[in-house]
Amino acid sequence: MRTSRLEAFSDGVFAIAATLLVLELRVPDEGVDLPRALFHLWPAYAAYLISFATIGIIWVNHHTLLEHCKRADRPFLYLNLLLLITVGIVPFPTALVGRYILAEHGATAALVVYGLGALLIAIAFSGVFFYATSGRHLIGGEAEAKRLRIDGRLFPIGLVSYTIGIALAFVEPKASLAMYALTAAFYALPVLPLPRER
Amino acid sequence: MRTSRLEAFSDGVFAIAATLLVLELRVPDEGVDLPRALFHLWPAYAAYLISFATIGIIWVNHHTLLEHCKRADRPFLYLNLLLLITVGIVPFPTALVGRYILAEHGATAALVVYGLGALLIAIAFSGVFFYATSGRHLIGGEAEAKRLRIDGRLFPIGLVSYTIGIALAFVEPKASLAMYALTAAFYALPVLPLPRER
Amino acid sequence: MRTSRLEAFSDGVFAIAATLLVLELRVPDEGVDLPRALFHLWPAYAAYLISFATIGIIWVNHHTLLEHCKRADRPFLYLNLLLLITVGIVPFPTALVGRYILAEHGATAALVVYGLGALLIAIAFSGVFFYATSGRHLIGGEAEAKRLRIDGRLFPIGLVSYTIGIALAFVEPKASLAMYALTAAFYALPVLPLPRER
Amino acid sequence: MRTSRLEAFSDGVFAIAATLLVLELRVPDEGVDLPRALFHLWPAYAAYLISFATIGIIWVNHHTLLEHCKRADRPFLYLNLLLLITVGIVPFPTALVGRYILAEHGATAALVVYGLGALLIAIAFSGVFFYATSGRHLIGGEAEAKRLRIDGRLFPIGLVSYTIGIALAFVEPKASLAMYALTAAFYALPVLPLPRER
Repeated sequence: MRTSRLEAFSDGVFAIAATLLVLELRVPDEGVDLPRALFHLWPAYAAYLISFATIGIIWVNHHTLLEHCKRADRPFLYLNLLLLITVGIVPFPTALVGRYILAEHGATAALVVYGLGALLIAIAFSGVFFYATSGRHLIGGEAEAKRLRIDGRLFPIGLVSYTIGIALAFVEPKASLAMYALTAAFYALPVLPLPRER
Repeated sequence: MRTSRLEAFSDGVFAIAATLLVLELRVPDEGVDLPRALFHLWPAYAAYLISFATIGIIWVNHHTLLEHCKRADRPFLYLNLLLLITVGIVPFPTALVGRYILAEHGATAALVVYGLGALLIAIAFSGVFFYATSGRHLIGGEAEAKRLRIDGRLFPIGLVSYTIGIALAFVEPKASLAMYALTAAFYALPVLPLPRER
Repeated sequence: MRTSRLEAFSDGVFAIAATLLVLELRVPDEGVDLPRALFHLWPAYAAYLISFATIGIIWVNHHTLLEHCKRADRPFLYLNLLLLITVGIVPFPTALVGRYILAEHGATAALVVYGLGALLIAIAFSGVFFYATSGRHLIGGEAEAKRLRIDGRLFPIGLVSYTIGIALAFVEPKASLAMYALTAAFYALPVLPLPRER
Repeated sequence: MRTSRLEAFSDGVFAIAATLLVLELRVPDEGVDLPRALFHLWPAYAAYLISFATIGIIWVNHHTLLEHCKRADRPFLYLNLLLLITVGIVPFPTALVGRYILAEHGATAALVVYGLGALLIAIAFSGVFFYATSGRHLIGGEAEAKRLRIDGRLFPIGLVSYTIGIALAFVEPKASLAMYALTAAFYALPVLPLPRER
């Protein structure tokens, strides 16, 4: 099976999940002091920025991985679908964090949910990664699959760092959010190698 | 007519309908016990999961069917449009189920509407399937069309299982939802064969 | 300039505008008689159906026209952008009609707005059509451009029928909505010819 | 790395950000004088029009620039991601302007936020433009990169005009909005050249 429609459907979900985040930036009601109200929305801006960047960086890594894949099979489509289900849910924990990170009660719960969502993404992407590189003929040659598997050995690090982020939520919610942002920044590094040539 | 834009438009509608589902996961109002309120949202999570998986699995089967099609004609575009109209409506019954499945009144109505929506999808997809495989030259050769028609004889089973799900809604709404989930799982099996070679 | 990204961006706007329509199907508040409340939503279902079909049929005609185009230039991109601006607004008049067609006051205004929106689409598409077929080298040869212009002479009929629909809104709003549905059905006919060969 | 998925993901975000703008056109509550209420929505219509046109024109220029690019690398993907983050936020300042431009208090703040958003887009796009044309081998030849850099020397003018628009917001909000519309119109001119041949 070709990978082109897999890419198109995935690109669609990534792009929509990222762009829907803006709906959580809500216009303050009339009658308030608008500059002040806009300033107090900063947690929502921060959550928008971190979640959009996270989705975008996942997209870059998805793109890099798929550059190696010559074809797709049904299990790969379903593992990818699991990944998309977890990516598609991102606007919900993002909204939770934007609204609750400064609240007296609920900040911990909001950041735990955000971390659980991110952890699910990391698990699903690790599944996609290991399936693609486990020599099941999706990637052109066994040598390239092996190289990718070795070069990408740091790839599942999100499983650890998101777990730390969840633990931090019980101590200091803002430190937890910083951990999630740092994890996104880590994945922006060239964790996965590009194909040697095309 | 090429099938590439048909695929692009369809991929768009599938991806958007699936990703819009997240808008029904609503952030609890401030002042509540957040962990408890998040826990009580489980029917909305279940509805999100089942509907996203259903749309994703329909997409996989749509993708598989289109892999066989060498070209498209106008009636095929319109049958496909009917399918997309029914897929695009999924967020509405999903929201209904998420909000009403635990309600004292309305659970039956919500699951009947969900089943009717799914039944419409099954009818529309059966129309697309029979039109594509009825030897009208969309698929390369008559032999392949016939093989597809025979191998895919279990494909319209959703017409039966969604009807059973609707009947179950009057007895036990949760059993009805389980039936819808099971039907999605059935369609995740390789019901439609892949092209023998490319 | 290639037409592929023009098509991708257009497909995106068409697919999103159509799929956003579902957001206007609002889940009734708890505490009501759900089956009854769902039944009374029928104008919203009708508006969803007519608008999704209208957008889908515009997409089919856009697709057919673009099959003839070998390239795009800047004015064509901007005429197409005007078309997309008018298509993107469809969810707003659709929501108006769904909520006001049965209201004591406002039904006429809602259907006038719907008709004006549809008229703007018809004007913009006519602009795209005449620009593409006016021998400005977008279409391969002058002969094919001429044939398309002649075969498509009924194409701007929406300018007339949507005007009639607007006039009908002052007499009987439901007749006006029927006129809009009929116009969509007319455009589902093969008004534009396909390329003779590829 | 190919540019095709970069284009697909970007097209998705552009198309969705533009089409989400319609959600800010809110149906007036029942019981009001509908024609009058619809007329008073004109600032929301104007904001829709200007923002959709702005996004569409950015898309045309993005498309033109990418026509020159033969490949992409990781920094380019991330600069492009920054651009998409700023484009994806457009519905928020658009909603602000639509609701506050006529308000006694808040019009200045709304138009400052709109201008800051537009300025961020101009900065991000300038980054994408300079990176692509700085001879880093994304564009086929050094000669073409140089020509593009010289011909596109007016490209970062938005940095100036959006700053003027922000200043105008403190004097007369409507003049500020006109400045933003004028800037979009400027970018609709062929600021960036097309590739000489393909």
